[in-house]
Amino acid sequence: MEYYSYDNSYSLLHTPDGVRDIYNGECELKLHLQNKIHHVLHLYGFRDIQTPSFEFFDIFNKERGTIPSREMYKFFDREGNTLVLRPDFTPSIGRCAAKYFKDEELPVRLCYIGNTFINNSSHQGKLNETTQVGAELFNDASVEADAEIVALTIDSLLLAGLKEFQIEIGHGGFVNSLLEEANFTNEEAMELKMLLEQKNLFGIDDIVSKKDMNENTKELLLALPEMFGSIEHLQTAKAKTNNPKALAVIKRLEELYTIIDGYGLANYLSFDLGMLSRYNYYTGIILRGVTYGTGEIIAQGGRYDNLVGQFGKESPAIGVAFVVDALMQAVSRQKIKTWSEETSVLVLYDADLHMDAVNVVKTLRQNQIQAQLLRKKDDYNVEDYVTFAKGNAITEILNLTGKESAERITDITLDSKPVQKNGNTDEMMTLCINEAKRKENE
Amino acid sequence: MEYYSYDNSYSLLHTPDGVRDIYNGECELKLHLQNKIHHVLHLYGFRDIQTPSFEFFDIFNKERGTIPSREMYKFFDREGNTLVLRPDFTPSIGRCAAKYFKDEELPVRLCYIGNTFINNSSHQGKLNETTQVGAELFNDASVEADAEIVALTIDSLLLAGLKEFQIEIGHGGFVNSLLEEANFTNEEAMELKMLLEQKNLFGIDDIVSKKDMNENTKELLLALPEMFGSIEHLQTAKAKTNNPKALAVIKRLEELYTIIDGYGLANYLSFDLGMLSRYNYYTGIILRGVTYGTGEIIAQGGRYDNLVGQFGKESPAIGVAFVVDALMQAVSRQKIKTWSEETSVLVLYDADLHMDAVNVVKTLRQNQIQAQLLRKKDDYNVEDYVTFAKGNAITEILNLTGKESAERITDITLDSKPVQKNGNTDEMMTLCINEAKRKENE
Repeated sequence: MEYYSYDNSYSLLHTPDGVRDIYNGECELKLHLQNKIHHVLHLYGFRDIQTPSFEFFDIFNKERGTIPSREMYKFFDREGNTLVLRPDFTPSIGRCAAKYFKDEELPVRLCYIGNTFINNSSHQGKLNETTQVGAELFNDASVEADAEIVALTIDSLLLAGLKEFQIEIGHGGFVNSLLEEANFTNEEAMELKMLLEQKNLFGIDDIVSKKDMNENTKELLLALPEMFGSIEHLQTAKAKTNNPKALAVIKRLEELYTIIDGYGLANYLSFDLGMLSRYNYYTGIILRGVTYGTGEIIAQGGRYDNLVGQFGKESPAIGVAFVVDALMQAVSRQKIKTWSEETSVLVLYDADLHMDAVNVVKTLRQNQIQAQLLRKKDDYNVEDYVTFAKGNAITEILNLTGKESAERITDITLDSKPVQKNGNTDEMMTLCINEAKRKENE
Repeated sequence: MEYYSYDNSYSLLHTPDGVRDIYNGECELKLHLQNKIHHVLHLYGFRDIQTPSFEFFDIFNKERGTIPSREMYKFFDREGNTLVLRPDFTPSIGRCAAKYFKDEELPVRLCYIGNTFINNSSHQGKLNETTQVGAELFNDASVEADAEIVALTIDSLLLAGLKEFQIEIGHGGFVNSLLEEANFTNEEAMELKMLLEQKNLFGIDDIVSKKDMNENTKELLLALPEMFGSIEHLQTAKAKTNNPKALAVIKRLEELYTIIDGYGLANYLSFDLGMLSRYNYYTGIILRGVTYGTGEIIAQGGRYDNLVGQFGKESPAIGVAFVVDALMQAVSRQKIKTWSEETSVLVLYDADLHMDAVNVVKTLRQNQIQAQLLRKKDDYNVEDYVTFAKGNAITEILNLTGKESAERITDITLDSKPVQKNGNTDEMMTLCINEAKRKENE
């Protein structure tokens, strides 16, 4: 019986595959990062939108070009319609652009924060629920719009505190134009793209050398897996092709580079002409934020000029989404201390001083200082409360020792021995409030 | 074909029953309200936690005492386990308290923001996905803890801008102790509670008068549907019973009132001795925030001392959750203007001035002012841009008229005719920046 009960409560503590709890410092970091990015999106003029966590399957089906159906969480509504947990924000926001901004011809800027759900098989070790912050810009087909999204991505990552990162820029049209020129069938094209994604040089060589095509094009296709890095790769590619569509792509990327250089952000850019995306709705540039130390994608996006039309409004569009969970990892890995601790006061009291303690926390809170109450326990001493404070992001302890007297315990966030100062309650509170204001102005 | 295609894109615009998109001002209000409440929870020392949007069904099954299984959204993982979209945060946060704070004896304060999912049948017209902000306080069985949660609820609603609201306080133990005394069977008790919830006077009379019991108890049970309002009802009830459990409940509620009075917040309290909750995990006080104008519950919570133990840690607990969607309605209904508009600048440019426009928005954004770019269109005039600005929460238009000259269009948020001022770009920008700073200090 005892065993069964233990076993039962043990299994009750588990969360499903691929999802998890986060709390304390990790959760605070996450909220800090997403708030910083959200702030940048507002500075760029984007306005918030929220869509349901689940939608009809059709919003995300194959025609839309998002991830494969087998990777979605599906269930049924009371009428038997198939619903899916949103695997991707872009189709939902595209639907909203068509629904609520149907007649708007000028740019529409929408941003969001929320979770996406991908049912990865468990051995991949990936998170199945991730938080994304993103921006979508509608009704603007220009390279200036491409540049705005790229600049916004860089500004967001900078404000999030990241130092070493690159925005890799590709364009689905480049590879496609070469494959079209070389008369690849759909199946051959899909196979080659898969190999390109894996940067499988032997596989690529195998397919390309068998195919009859212009020598320059062949050389270009074989070189693709290594054509990433600085702007010079665009020059190299340009010298190797006369394909008008491929040249138009290069011209667009060069224009984009010039504008981003004007923004003063060109050193965060790199190009990858062989880059492909698993999202089939992209029709123009694709972008990916990557960072030193983790291979994970911290931001991804691109231009999707044909998606919104499927919802009934012809609208070019470009967007980017930040993967907050991946960004947290990157920030932790780069040991970036992104924000200073807020003052948080623990007020210790004995039962008969409860209302005095309430008045103390009220005053602190009115001064926008975090304050929590703790009734003293018989067998606890100062060191115990200091241990508790350290584990709970508490920076100050105020110990009420009498009707009008208090003891302030400082240096509790450091490893040094706590220092106690005696005085009257008001005086000790003033010290706490001043300390908090000093920190805030740091 | 045309018809089919129209029909298809039309259905693609729909969202499932009970869930919806929100955008523009409505979404901004929602984020504003949840941020304000979240801020108060931090001021009270609560720390953030995030749990998965879906969990194993067992976390929310009948033993836990949350809503009925038929109202949950269920699906399966790859191993065939039943998962449910979180219908309620309390069991999840309780699970976390047991898992991550198992050995902590001092109070643990956790808070969250997220969505809950209840599969209401469609004719009820209720939202199936609602956003909740909430706080849970563990390891504290005291009436001081009850009072902290009640005070936090009132402070949060006040900071959210709400003026007319009441926190109704009940206690499941009151009715239960009377029913126990009168030897009600489980079935009879359930029936009577249902009738009490509906305030069905005839039904209550029918059951109670048939039952053999103390005359005072009978009178008390019959009076329950009307025993709500001021603290005096507690006196009335006390005079009518000798039941020690019922008297203990009244004593606890009186103590709670005294503390809340000490907080200076007693005029927001009302009592309802007949109040019951659909959440069966409550063991002590239950509370409900209601507001003038809508019958909807804007906050709800209570004490649940036996839930966390089911996850393997004996811990008394009390919590409250704010229903942000209901709060939005209440705030709109009470016509509360909760925050002043942020300055948001639209920068108009011709193609050859794009980089100048980029420099303008860069400077504005560095000054924390929202700024968006718009390339001028051939057939648009100032009035058209003003219309666009009005629809997009834009407060200023800066029209670049040359390399170094700009035109500032003011009064665009008012219905008056726009006023244009000419000058050089820097001068116009300085005016915008000063205007934004003035607004911020208002």
